[in-house]
Parts: sequence; structure tokens; C-alpha cells
Amino acid sequence: MSKLRIIPLGGLDQIGMNITAFEYEDDIIVVDCGSAFPSDDMLGIDLVIPDVSYLEDNIERVRGLFITHGHEDHIGAIPYIIRRLNVPIYGTKLTMALIDGKLEELSLESVAKRKIVRYGQTVTAGSFKVEFIRTNHSIADAAAFAISCPAGTVVHTGDFKVDYTPVYGDPINLTRFAELGNKGVLALLCDSTNAIREGFTMSERTVGKTINAIFDENANSRIIVATFASNVDRVQQIIDAAVKHERKVAVDGRSMVRILGTASDVGYINIPEGSLITIEELNNYPREKVVLITTGSQGESMASLSRMAASIHRKVSIDPTDVIILSSNPIPGNEKAVSKVINELTAQGAKVIFQDVHVSGHACQEEIKLLYTLIKPQYAVPLHGEYRHRQAQAGLAADLGIARENIFLLEAGDVLEMDEESAYVVDKVPNGRTLVDGLGVGDVGNIVLRDRQLLAQHGIIILVSVFEHGSGELLAGPDIITRGFVYVRESEELMEEAQEVAYSTIVNCRTRGVTDWAKIKTEMKDDLSDFLWKRMRRSPMIIPIIMEV
Amino acid sequence: MSKLRIIPLGGLDQIGMNITAFEYEDDIIVVDCGSAFPSDDMLGIDLVIPDVSYLEDNIERVRGLFITHGHEDHIGAIPYIIRRLNVPIYGTKLTMALIDGKLEELSLESVAKRKIVRYGQTVTAGSFKVEFIRTNHSIADAAAFAISCPAGTVVHTGDFKVDYTPVYGDPINLTRFAELGNKGVLALLCDSTNAIREGFTMSERTVGKTINAIFDENANSRIIVATFASNVDRVQQIIDAAVKHERKVAVDGRSMVRILGTASDVGYINIPEGSLITIEELNNYPREKVVLITTGSQGESMASLSRMAASIHRKVSIDPTDVIILSSNPIPGNEKAVSKVINELTAQGAKVIFQDVHVSGHACQEEIKLLYTLIKPQYAVPLHGEYRHRQAQAGLAADLGIARENIFLLEAGDVLEMDEESAYVVDKVPNGRTLVDGLGVGDVGNIVLRDRQLLAQHGIIILVSVFEHGSGELLAGPDIITRGFVYVRESEELMEEAQEVAYSTIVNCRTRGVTDWAKIKTEMKDDLSDFLWKRMRRSPMIIPIIMEV
Repeated sequence: MSKLRIIPLGGLDQIGMNITAFEYEDDIIVVDCGSAFPSDDMLGIDLVIPDVSYLEDNIERVRGLFITHGHEDHIGAIPYIIRRLNVPIYGTKLTMALIDGKLEELSLESVAKRKIVRYGQTVTAGSFKVEFIRTNHSIADAAAFAISCPAGTVVHTGDFKVDYTPVYGDPINLTRFAELGNKGVLALLCDSTNAIREGFTMSERTVGKTINAIFDENANSRIIVATFASNVDRVQQIIDAAVKHERKVAVDGRSMVRILGTASDVGYINIPEGSLITIEELNNYPREKVVLITTGSQGESMASLSRMAASIHRKVSIDPTDVIILSSNPIPGNEKAVSKVINELTAQGAKVIFQDVHVSGHACQEEIKLLYTLIKPQYAVPLHGEYRHRQAQAGLAADLGIARENIFLLEAGDVLEMDEESAYVVDKVPNGRTLVDGLGVGDVGNIVLRDRQLLAQHGIIILVSVFEHGSGELLAGPDIITRGFVYVRESEELMEEAQEVAYSTIVNCRTRGVTDWAKIKTEMKDDLSDFLWKRMRRSPMIIPIIMEV
Repeated sequence: MSKLRIIPLGGLDQIGMNITAFEYEDDIIVVDCGSAFPSDDMLGIDLVIPDVSYLEDNIERVRGLFITHGHEDHIGAIPYIIRRLNVPIYGTKLTMALIDGKLEELSLESVAKRKIVRYGQTVTAGSFKVEFIRTNHSIADAAAFAISCPAGTVVHTGDFKVDYTPVYGDPINLTRFAELGNKGVLALLCDSTNAIREGFTMSERTVGKTINAIFDENANSRIIVATFASNVDRVQQIIDAAVKHERKVAVDGRSMVRILGTASDVGYINIPEGSLITIEELNNYPREKVVLITTGSQGESMASLSRMAASIHRKVSIDPTDVIILSSNPIPGNEKAVSKVINELTAQGAKVIFQDVHVSGHACQEEIKLLYTLIKPQYAVPLHGEYRHRQAQAGLAADLGIARENIFLLEAGDVLEMDEESAYVVDKVPNGRTLVDGLGVGDVGNIVLRDRQLLAQHGIIILVSVFEHGSGELLAGPDIITRGFVYVRESEELMEEAQEVAYSTIVNCRTRGVTDWAKIKTEMKDDLSDFLWKRMRRSPMIIPIIMEV
């Protein structure tokens, strides 16, 4: 009998774009296809998606794309790869509605076949069978997968938490995990995001209680709540609190409006008739009778709340009597931006509440242990998290009795081959990150990024000279143009000296009989570079241009 | 009688460069003169210092610079302003030794007069008397100032905490604050950094206990401890733990070596004879018999620990048996960089301990309340902190009975005029940030930064054409050169099209009889910009250059 091959292509580091391939003989299925935000050094990049060239190279064997839930780090790359990787997409109802929305935005809705799957249903894809199992997460309709092939069954949790009192739907189907565990599970691929946190993640419903208490305490103020647009259950609880307190609800922020529209269309959010008003209608009601739900809880510079904080929102002005709730914790890297927004709102006199109005959507240590204990996997493959998070899960798995050699901390592209006899990393396939810049997918790479970093550091100096063809005589220039270097008006003397340096190089080359343009350009660059370093300790990019007429 | 004027010129926002001027009639004194790290949008900038043009314009009235302690955000700007603002500098012994070091590095040691002041001493500067009062902080020799003039006495705390069991020296001189309070204090200018934190900051000595416990538990491993170089007391405790556990100590990282040298020279650190070894000698001892103290606890990319984590340190390789202690908390904005270092060290098998091995150097709410209660100021002027931190202190002051109208949340440049009768913001003086880039101080401003940001986004396209003087005939070009835009080799077709667009613009201008070079350049830029946006949704900087021969 053949072996199962598990190949994570992303989601194993700080850039969390989740995608994992499963391969059995001639069949490949893919779980999730997420995008990530660019890291600070990826200048000008809008989005990062996984390199799927391995899948493209094997496209005739790929049977389907199975999506665990509708968050960007699990669905965001679909529009960018679906033309090249045109395979059926499977997901639950809300998940698929969010994917539909993304594809429609780029007029790709006719490209891929899509099928909505209910919890408990099993999809056959080649020699794989994929069963959808209910979990809880910070978005409704999240699923784990039991993936079976002749080599055995593995469980992929997706992102999950154990919520015994979820806002929408039922608790995670622990019974089914127990049944699978009894039948025998080869491997568990489990969410590691919170694996360094002890204890148990609180129920989403506890946030509802906190929000209600804040509404009680601030009965005379307008309330503005910023949260993740994708946390539909959170938004539901804010709406419930508003309705209970007889406040009208307005919604602002592009993604908030879009996701709530989608969730409402497919029945995953309940907005009582007459409670929703437009943002323009806000001022028609007393301040203590409205709630505004917005994006921007992460301090994103162009999001609704940030624009209010900076007093550049066209429709909402912050008032000293406003109460603003940030219902999220800063994602690592966003702390300063969030602080900035809080400072700006506070300076306008508003009351900002930002502590303990959030719970995570990911399992902490006790929940992870619960899943391991029910599923009793032979092998552990911690997924979704930085190395230190996955290592923490590895520690938990070891504590629960899984032998160290059966726990795998994989790198992207690793091919983990397994059956009941053994499991080894046997190969490495192409993997990495593809950068999306505007409409360009993959046309910006390391060299271009390196140039952007150089340009960002000390700007650019362009040296243009015109030489006569044949004689090699200097007809015009060298002229100097700079951008991002220094205030030119206040540095005229420096510019003149720099021009002198360039001119001397040309004269010097001519004296020595150097006529090769490439060589002259190199010398101009080196001489000016030396001059600027000695004079200013700066290294702008220098571009010598020679035109011949 | 005249009034006292208090003018903070920095230290009131996320960019924490502390500097405050005090003015009485013809006399000005300045407390602290700090630098700050550039924020993310200040591309290529090395350091940010306060705009001191108000002080320069009044240089003949400035009587002295009084420094509370030796941290960069209180002394870092001195070398950059001291030539223009050449006034005597006053500070305690360790503070002055650190200032000496900075001045020597830039050969400025002969520029300014400096005077070491002991706790309890009072310096007369014009009509001001400045008394140095002992406080505690994360560096030894920190002082608060009681600043007296005919209008009254104000207390400036500097950065402080209340440590009843400090590692070096005595506890904060609460008695003196009580005496001053009894005599009557006009205003308290108090550190707000931790004003949103409840309770009391733990003693520095508690960290020593934790470190000793970690040494006990990891008796068979090499131990590497990363911490702030400037936290001399922390380093002392690490050395004490090492000596107690019979380990030799090596030190790495430029600032760690420099600051320890200074502290050791002036007797603020005690390294027992024979316990210090060089980093080269590390491998001459068993791994369990050494401790390495390094910089890099904030994930700074070029610091010692980061280089070890990335396996590019020339002298130290991480071993799977190593234990690494990060004895600091990430400063907001550094969380991702610290995570990266932890991931890299963990992936090499090392054990990384980073929780609860640090205490803050700043007062929490109960300590702030203690100072207010002892000093009983008429006016409260929260200093040192973002708006929300200072506002939190304002709330504490109000809770303690200070009238809201006597609490001042100032902006940089505000002139707060006060005497026993009243206090008002009466004026605003020039203020802001001066950017240091290489050897240039202030030659990079908003326009240059804006250009760097544009260049960083989508790179640059240069269009060069040569025209004949008089006839206006196109002799060469338009040639296209790009940097940071796209891979040129893979985008030849695009480049050709872009060249076509530029050429068409030139032909078009000629046909319409447009001969003004500026107008032709504008049209070339606009046309190419439109083409690229439609084609790629990108907006690189476009520089059309016309050479005339």
C-alpha cells in the first residue's frame, strides 16, 4: 500500500498564509489557500500569497480545494491562483459566500466550480474522502476535516477553539472527534496559534456580557465599537446589545459593510427590522440612541476609526462625550498604530475602552490537550503558528504521551510521508511567497524589493550626461537630479560640489583615454558615492545615465 | 512678581525625546535633552532630536542644561545641539560619565562645561536654584529636581520608580519630597509612562531572584542573557548570579561593552577580579561554567543576540543545549522583531525564557499617588508619556483632589505660565522634530521623507530624452530606466510599450506646436502615469529628463 504525503506550503511562520496539500498516489487535495499582510520590509506590496508552483506543475492530479473557514489567511489567495489552479472549491455556507464575494469583485465567479458542504457531509475527491466537522472559531461555519485515504485518516483542525456556548450555532463536535479517535487516527494537524497560552479560551459569549455592561454604564453617550469585520458573532452581539438598549445601529468601513452584507444574505446575522440606519442618518437621532460599528480596531491608517481619530472622516466627528470600544487586541506589529488611535481619540476628549473587550478565536493549551486526548493520533503535526507556537504544541503532545519522533515541526515545502508503520520527511518541494503589487502577481521579487529599500533609505541621485557619438565629446551635463536625498534648495553648494565631482570623473576618464561608457558610468558612480559618504555618511542610490547623439 | 514659565519641547507623544525649559524673567534652564528612535514612516532616518530653535533664539538667557539620568531619551540629543547651545551641563556622576562618553565619540568633549552634582546639592543658575534629589529608575544615579525661583518651587521627577530595595544605592528620598511638600510646591511634573498600570512596580531586586532561580534550574547549560545595556543594575545582578554559580562572564554588543566600561570606571558596577573573560575565551571553559551577557533583547536586527539567532554572529554559535534569557519586555513596536529572534533561537533547539524576567523602571499608579500625596502640588503637569498615559495621570491627580483646572495636559511648545494666583497656557513657541540622517542634522524634512515614501512604494521610472537646441528635434531617447518597479528582464514588453507612450507624447506635443520643455515633461509624466495605473494599478515616481544640445 502507498503512503500519504502531507505538504504544508505556508502558515508555518510569522507570515501566516495557510495552505496544506495532501497527496496519495495520483491524487492531491489542498486545504485552505490564504493570503497574508506584507511584512515591514516588503515595501509597496499589497498582499502576500503562497507560491503554488508545485500544485501548478501537478495540476492534472489536483482534485479539489477544501476551505476550513472564511478568514483572509485561509481564503485570501484564491482569486490570485484560481485561474491557474482551476479546481472545485468546497466549503461551508458562510465560508463559500465570502469566497463568492471575493471572486465576484474580480469578475472571476464563473471560473471555478464551487460546492457548499454541510457539517457531517463527506466529499469524495479521487482516493480521498473529506468529512466536514463542526468547530468553533471567531467566525461562524468553521470546519475541521477528517481526511481519509487508504493509508489512513488524518484530522486537520483548521483554526478552532472549544466554545460550549457559541453565539451562532452549536459547540464544536467533540463527539465526532472521539469517534474518529476510537477508530484510529494517523495524524492530527492542529492549530498552534495560542499553544503558548495556558488554560482555556473564554467563550465568545463572555464578550457580549462585557459589551452589555459597557452599554449600561454609558447610557447617555454615543457608543462607537470597532472590531474585526470578519468576526460576525462579535458584531451580532454588539447589535443585540444595541437593540436591548433601544439604540439604532449604523455600520461603517468597507469590509464591515461587505462582510455583514454577505453574512446577512446567507442568514448568519440577525438584524431586527428597523434597527439598522445609514451613517448619514446618525445625526437624526439623539447621541445616546445610536451605536456605530466600524473597522479600524487594529489602527489601520485608512480604516474608519483611524479616520475619525485623525478628524478626517467625512461623515463622523468625534465628540468629547463619545464612548469608543476597541473590541479586539492588537495583532503583534500593530501595537503602536493602535496606541496612536487611542491617543488621538483620547486627546479629543472621548472615553476609550480597550481592555478585556475581546476573546481569542484560537484554542489555548487545555483545549489543544482535549483534542489530542479525544483523537489519540499516532503522529502530531502542529500547524498554524510561528515556530515557537508550534514547538509549544509539540511539548503538549509529548506531555500527552506521543513519542518525540512522532511529532513533526515541518518547514514550508517539506514532504512528510506516512503510514501506520512510519513517518519521515522525504522530500522538499518548491515553496515560498509570491508578492502581489497592484495587478501584478509575482513581478516584484527580491531585487526589486532591495531597490525599494535602498531608495527608501537615502533616496536617489541621477547623473545625466550627453556625449557626441564618435568624438566622445561631452555635449551637455553632467546634470544632477535628486529625489528623497536632501532639500535641494538648502543644499545648493553640496549639489554644485557633487556636479564638480562627476565632471572631474569624466575629464579624468577622457585624459586616461577611457571611452567605454560602462566604465565611465561605474567610475562616476564610485567617485560620487565616496564623496557623499565622506561628506554626509549617506549612500543614496546613484544612477549615471549617458546619452549619445 | 513675575511668573514662572514651563515649556515642554518634547516627550509628550509616542516619540519620547524628553526636554523641558523653565523660564523666569531673563533666565532659562533646560531639563534633559533626549533623542528618540525614528518612527516607521521616517525612512532612512537614524535619530530624531527636538527642535531647539526657541532655545537657540534665546541662547544669551539659557543658564544651564540639567540632566535627570543617563538614558538616551534624556541625553541622546546633547551631542547634536551642544555646539549651538553651548551651556554648562549638570548631572550626577554616572549620568555625566555617560554624557562624557557620547561627547568623546564625536570629539566634542572640549565644547561644553560639565559639572557633577551630588544628591542633596543645589545648583544656582540665574534666578533658579536646582536641587538634586535621589530617585530610583532602571539606571543608577537618577535624580528628580526641585526647581525654585521667586515664583515658587516646582518638582520635576524625571523617570522614576519607588524601589525600597534597589540594587545600587539607597531608596528614593521620599523624606525630602515630604519636606518640600510641607513648604509648599507650586507644580509637580511627574513621569506618566506607567500611569495606566495599577498597583506598584516591583523592586529591581525581584528580577535578581528570578535570574538566580533560572541559574539553579539550568546548572548544566550555557546561559546567555540579553538585556538593556543601560540597565546597569540588571547587569550587576546577572554578574552576581554568575559569580554565585561559579560561572565566568563574557560581555558582547557594542553598547553593552561601552556602558559597562563607563559604569565600571566610575564605580557603579562591581565585577569581582577574575570573573570577566573575553568572548574569545568563552570556548576555553565548559559550557556550564560561563554566562554571556549581550544586547539584542528588543530584536534589533544588528544586535548581538539577533546575529546569534540568525547564525551570523562571528564568535558565538547557538547550541541546542543553550538557555537564553530575554531580560526585558518588548517595547511597543518591537514585538514582531522579538518574536522573530525567539523563533530563530527556538528553531536551533535552544531554550528561550522570556516571561517574567523583567520589571519596569517607571512608577505605577500607587507610586504616582504616593508622590502626589507627599508633594501636595498646587498644579499637576503630567510629563513623559503618550497622551493616554498623561491623561491617566491627570485622572489620578484629580482623584487625589487637585482641581481639574489645575491639571495641565500640555502639547510640545506650550508655554504654561504660573504663580500662586493662577496658571494658564499663554503662548506657543516653535517646536517639533529634527531628523538626523548620517552626519546631516535637519537637512531631511517632510518633502524629502515624502519622496522616500513614494520611492519605497513602487520605485522610480526615469525618462531621458535629448533634443536639439533651436530646432527642438528629438536626437535621442526617450530612454527608460527603472529601479524598484518590476523585474525589467521579465517585463520587456511592458517597457517597450511605456517607451512608445513617452514617444507618442513627444510627437503629439510637436504636432500641436508645444515647445515648452516644462509642459512636455508634465505631459510625458501624466501620460505614462495613466498608462501604468490602467495597466498595473501602480504609481511609481516618474522623472522626465530633457537634455538640450
